[in-house]
Amino acid sequence: MKRFIYADNAATSKLSPQALEAMISYLSKEYANPSQLYTFAKRPKNALKESRQIIAECIGASPEEIFFTSCGTESDNWAIHEAIERGYDIVTSSIEHHAVLHPCQKAEQGGVSVAYLSVDHDGLVSVTNLAQNIGRSETLVSIMMANNEIGSIQPIKDLCEVAHSKGALFHTDAVQAVGHIRIDVHDLGVDMLSASAHKFNGPKGIGFLYVRKDIDMSPYISGGGQEYGLRSGTENVASIVGMAVALRENIESLEKNQSHIQHLESLILRLLDESDIIYQRNGADNHVPGNISLSFPGHSGESILHRLDLQGICISTGSACNSKDTVVSHVLKAIGLPDDIAQSTVRISLGKYNSEDEIISIVESLSKL
Amino acid sequence: MKRFIYADNAATSKLSPQALEAMISYLSKEYANPSQLYTFAKRPKNALKESRQIIAECIGASPEEIFFTSCGTESDNWAIHEAIERGYDIVTSSIEHHAVLHPCQKAEQGGVSVAYLSVDHDGLVSVTNLAQNIGRSETLVSIMMANNEIGSIQPIKDLCEVAHSKGALFHTDAVQAVGHIRIDVHDLGVDMLSASAHKFNGPKGIGFLYVRKDIDMSPYISGGGQEYGLRSGTENVASIVGMAVALRENIESLEKNQSHIQHLESLILRLLDESDIIYQRNGADNHVPGNISLSFPGHSGESILHRLDLQGICISTGSACNSKDTVVSHVLKAIGLPDDIAQSTVRISLGKYNSEDEIISIVESLSKL
Repeated sequence: MKRFIYADNAATSKLSPQALEAMISYLSKEYANPSQLYTFAKRPKNALKESRQIIAECIGASPEEIFFTSCGTESDNWAIHEAIERGYDIVTSSIEHHAVLHPCQKAEQGGVSVAYLSVDHDGLVSVTNLAQNIGRSETLVSIMMANNEIGSIQPIKDLCEVAHSKGALFHTDAVQAVGHIRIDVHDLGVDMLSASAHKFNGPKGIGFLYVRKDIDMSPYISGGGQEYGLRSGTENVASIVGMAVALRENIESLEKNQSHIQHLESLILRLLDESDIIYQRNGADNHVPGNISLSFPGHSGESILHRLDLQGICISTGSACNSKDTVVSHVLKAIGLPDDIAQSTVRISLGKYNSEDEIISIVESLSKL
Repeated sequence: MKRFIYADNAATSKLSPQALEAMISYLSKEYANPSQLYTFAKRPKNALKESRQIIAECIGASPEEIFFTSCGTESDNWAIHEAIERGYDIVTSSIEHHAVLHPCQKAEQGGVSVAYLSVDHDGLVSVTNLAQNIGRSETLVSIMMANNEIGSIQPIKDLCEVAHSKGALFHTDAVQAVGHIRIDVHDLGVDMLSASAHKFNGPKGIGFLYVRKDIDMSPYISGGGQEYGLRSGTENVASIVGMAVALRENIESLEKNQSHIQHLESLILRLLDESDIIYQRNGADNHVPGNISLSFPGHSGESILHRLDLQGICISTGSACNSKDTVVSHVLKAIGLPDDIAQSTVRISLGKYNSEDEIISIVESLSKL
């Protein structure tokens, strides 16, 4: 394969070699179904237990508050499903991932009251606005921790406090945040939190939903009764182990990774400033390290993507998870970008495996456009 | 690890080394998100396309009729969800897996009419009984292809024909059948079919739902719009590839595997007959090769399991997917076994990796009890 530069870490990230190594044993010899009663099932069963413990520790939770799912999207859908099951209203934001917005829209069609809070130019939800939009205590608030397109980090603790003061439940889609910023669910006070392994150098096809222990959840997928009866299906042991190892690895070197990525981010912006490229940066000052949304007025984001691709550089336009979408990003619209600026936008998302040389190459390629 | 004999293939099966090898590349260097637009995403994207094609061919379907899910349980839940979305009645059987029964019971609580068809002593549903229980054309019939506890294979083609003659839709949970018996969805006529990779030597945490192409399904998990908009979430590329390779491998050597497993099955029964062990075999003559439900009157199934475990032999009592269940199996009850006989029952389920020597060891260990 040609040498390439991967700068699309918000779309997915390279599986940590340490996580892969941990998975191999459960993909080869330790293949027992962890629900079974014989000795051969003990190691997978213990692996599940340990992984749950590791993940819980990484976000300040207890093991019994971690429910394994197949992805962040499933975790988000489950949280919204819970609101529907309870007959709750939903208050969310206009810049959520489609994994929250689409089930909310469907809930609305089914008669559920859903409010979509606007955001400011930085993509931030206002605490006052949230307070005003919670009409009754039977409400689920779902506000993402960090946005996938612009990286902005919401004031989750304050939002959660306001939601709780109204008696509402609080869910946060933390898919872009877990493994990248320090999270303590008890300090934040959230009731539910979604995460996806492949966004923090874990494998694809696995995620989790944190649910605060005194919340009585409805089952999301029913059957054999796995995950305390709430999410059935034979456990994906290898991927769960890989997720735990990847998350622990990221959390153990969180400050080191953050400072490395912040350094690369400063470098890219400094090099852009030193060039004659005209651009604007989108998103809040408080954002996930390495998530860099850049608009290049007069250029098309899609053509920038394709021209960089010819140089072996992988970046994204608009929302990351499904680039087939050619409509203007709902996030860029919501932060008030005019259509032409929104269409001139690309997202460069850096990760712990990126290097200074790669940043220099990216800016060189941008200069040539 | 101590040498052991794995005879619980209906609970889960060893991942094929060929499948694992195919997965490794997508767990290491080919990590791009297949939805992205750059060149680096092409191989994962093509891998998804090829895997869909392979799986479709293995069951006589078209690629666009295959929807990847996270497991057989999810596939089953999705089929039942579709009935609920449509406001359909449901007709199912009393020996379905809990992945069908539990969502049906929940649907019932929500006001959906659900009929649970009884089965005969072999665990078979009667075509006439089905016909009598379809009250209107707005009905989903969900009858499993092969039972997980006793292996009995239902007359799916006939059942499906009757369902269609009444205008009903037909779903089959084929989790125990796919990769083990020859299946042609168009010949059978089924509208939906569930499968799980880890039951046919693929990885855990991946499955699929076949949906006949002119059926307009509601999305099950919403978000980024993957799987033709019906099942969102970044695709689990490595596991999808592993599932396809494992299924193709099983289908290519289906007759060879079947005859090997049938030989082992005959051997175990012959050796039991030659011993002074008193036993009865449960299930229909027409059953999935290697699924052997045996009752040993006067003994406890659970204690047989534990005694065999001491010899390193892995088998199951009752239903396989979650052996924590200590209530009498609903399947053994439904085929009319008295409680004491049901409780004396174990399931030995053989797979392509089992050998004659292992069978001899199993019967020797049973003799010693």
